[in-house]
Amino acid sequence: MFAPLQNDTFLRACLGQSTDYTPLWLMRQAGRYLPEYRATRAKAGSFMGLATNVDFATEVTLQPLERYPLDAAILFSDILTVPDAMGLGLSFALGEGPKFAKNVRDEAAVAELAVPDMAKLRYVFDAVTSIRKALDGRVPLIGFSGSPWTLACYMVEGAGSDDYRHVKTLMYARPDLMHQILALNADAVALYLNTQIEAGAQAVMIFDSWGGVLADGAFQTFSLAYTRRVLAQLKKTHDGQTIPRIVFTKGGGLWLDDMKDLDCHVLGLDWTTHLGAARAKVAPYGKALQGNLDPNVLFSPPDTIATQARQVLDSFGTPSEGSTHIFNLGHGISQHTPPESVSALVEAVHVHSRKLREPQ
Amino acid sequence: MFAPLQNDTFLRACLGQSTDYTPLWLMRQAGRYLPEYRATRAKAGSFMGLATNVDFATEVTLQPLERYPLDAAILFSDILTVPDAMGLGLSFALGEGPKFAKNVRDEAAVAELAVPDMAKLRYVFDAVTSIRKALDGRVPLIGFSGSPWTLACYMVEGAGSDDYRHVKTLMYARPDLMHQILALNADAVALYLNTQIEAGAQAVMIFDSWGGVLADGAFQTFSLAYTRRVLAQLKKTHDGQTIPRIVFTKGGGLWLDDMKDLDCHVLGLDWTTHLGAARAKVAPYGKALQGNLDPNVLFSPPDTIATQARQVLDSFGTPSEGSTHIFNLGHGISQHTPPESVSALVEAVHVHSRKLREPQ
Repeated sequence: MFAPLQNDTFLRACLGQSTDYTPLWLMRQAGRYLPEYRATRAKAGSFMGLATNVDFATEVTLQPLERYPLDAAILFSDILTVPDAMGLGLSFALGEGPKFAKNVRDEAAVAELAVPDMAKLRYVFDAVTSIRKALDGRVPLIGFSGSPWTLACYMVEGAGSDDYRHVKTLMYARPDLMHQILALNADAVALYLNTQIEAGAQAVMIFDSWGGVLADGAFQTFSLAYTRRVLAQLKKTHDGQTIPRIVFTKGGGLWLDDMKDLDCHVLGLDWTTHLGAARAKVAPYGKALQGNLDPNVLFSPPDTIATQARQVLDSFGTPSEGSTHIFNLGHGISQHTPPESVSALVEAVHVHSRKLREPQ
Repeated sequence: MFAPLQNDTFLRACLGQSTDYTPLWLMRQAGRYLPEYRATRAKAGSFMGLATNVDFATEVTLQPLERYPLDAAILFSDILTVPDAMGLGLSFALGEGPKFAKNVRDEAAVAELAVPDMAKLRYVFDAVTSIRKALDGRVPLIGFSGSPWTLACYMVEGAGSDDYRHVKTLMYARPDLMHQILALNADAVALYLNTQIEAGAQAVMIFDSWGGVLADGAFQTFSLAYTRRVLAQLKKTHDGQTIPRIVFTKGGGLWLDDMKDLDCHVLGLDWTTHLGAARAKVAPYGKALQGNLDPNVLFSPPDTIATQARQVLDSFGTPSEGSTHIFNLGHGISQHTPPESVSALVEAVHVHSRKLREPQ
């Protein structure tokens, strides 16, 4: 059904296997910093118009690969498609973040929730298959979902938040309801990711974008436990291939000891964590690391970008069998990024990471 | 000049000395969650009208102490008074954050900066003396400043930010200019805190509210190094009393190993850090810890507040000579907090922390 893979560097690094250089992709690599993305977005009329149209989603997913020799593609979609399919009514006002028509803050609203019919998310799975075909084996395709906790944040707040007041109020005052929401989210996310795998995703990533806002103790109970519940339900292989799983908790560097034994292949890190120190913790557990350049480095001149990229690679050190690195930003690329900065970054990572592997 | 101190629990705990219970104060304890604060704020007309009027500043500083048996008072002021005195023009639009009339993003703007004449900040020092007199020895008074890096964030961005794009662009692309700003900020902050100490502040706290947005490596170079430069210039004693120094880096839990040897008495922590684990790291360096309840706990029923407060106390464990704890939130109290929640918290901390000290 799909063309054979020509560049397996990303998948090999996820699985702890040796590669000639450090593979690289960027969170939100298909996005507003690219003029061709903004043109497609204008044609689509709205963000959800873009995300729900298979042709548009395919087009924008491939745009960064036309410009840069990146080592993976990631499905163009939103982390909030699952709660939208639960009937909460997702929308994006121009220039603003996501907003739900309904929020979930009491027993009645929780009682109405159910794992959504995957037919409602068919536009996502169709996009996965379409993108995989369009990639024609150039690089692997990553599928993704928000984590149960991150989805719950938006479901309870009804939108983004700067203090997470409503979701934390529910969590502290009614932990029973929060556990109900999270269990349901975990089962929905697992089904959603498994269906992406069946549709053609060659790796999957769980974005725990808001795990880092939790208190120590609450993170383990309300975020990590439900990420584990997702992982326990995921298909390990498809079509005879291992499907690597990546877990990224923004602000989660403090909890590496809690995450090092997760049933996944890769842990994503933001820029606050020292890669070498993190590697020492997770390498005995066979985990690869993904990250972690500050996206704001991309506002610097090319020389500075190259220097900073080399520092990230050097802080990880030379990869070894069972302890590998996937280069990425520590968060999504900024919409204000000059596209030529990404060229400088990709070149620096590919060149320097080959040098790192040369015998000393 | 000032009345003798009746409750020295806070100062003793800062200095690693034994106390009968764990002292407690709350960041932003004089603030919008109190109806009496909102009434004074309305009389003052604007936030800066409130902060620059000695009588109003004294009134609001004492308000929480009338309601709750807190163990310290903190000067009512803003962290941005120093860049305002540098001529950048601080204002607060109603319901919005701080805004500067000028920002500092290029060589010319940096060249214009200078350590401000402390006469321009006389309203702060007058408030310190007035508050100290009004306290009449009930509890000690804490003075404070933003850290050099945190001030720089606002000076370069010109306002709050969600991505710190401008300040990080300057930092990565023109580190020479950033170092100039930070050196100047450090010298200004040291002078500012020393003048607060002379005016009557019995302890001082440096708020590195935005240190946690920096990448590992950049934090040490651009934030911590300049906090050290402030600390090196601070008066160690005044009127024969040691002046305890507290350093609080929001999101700094990952860097405790870098901070444990700071020339200060107390490290403040946000809720993401486990107090017991942090204590094990810093106790050999004689540091006390301050924190770290999630302010969102205060939206729960009183029983839950008490349980969560006990968990924070228990996670630190029984204080010992040279390893002590000051209870606080992990960040400023939310304006939406029900005032009665603070009563429940104060009682729980005082009662349970006495029990912790009982022989087993």
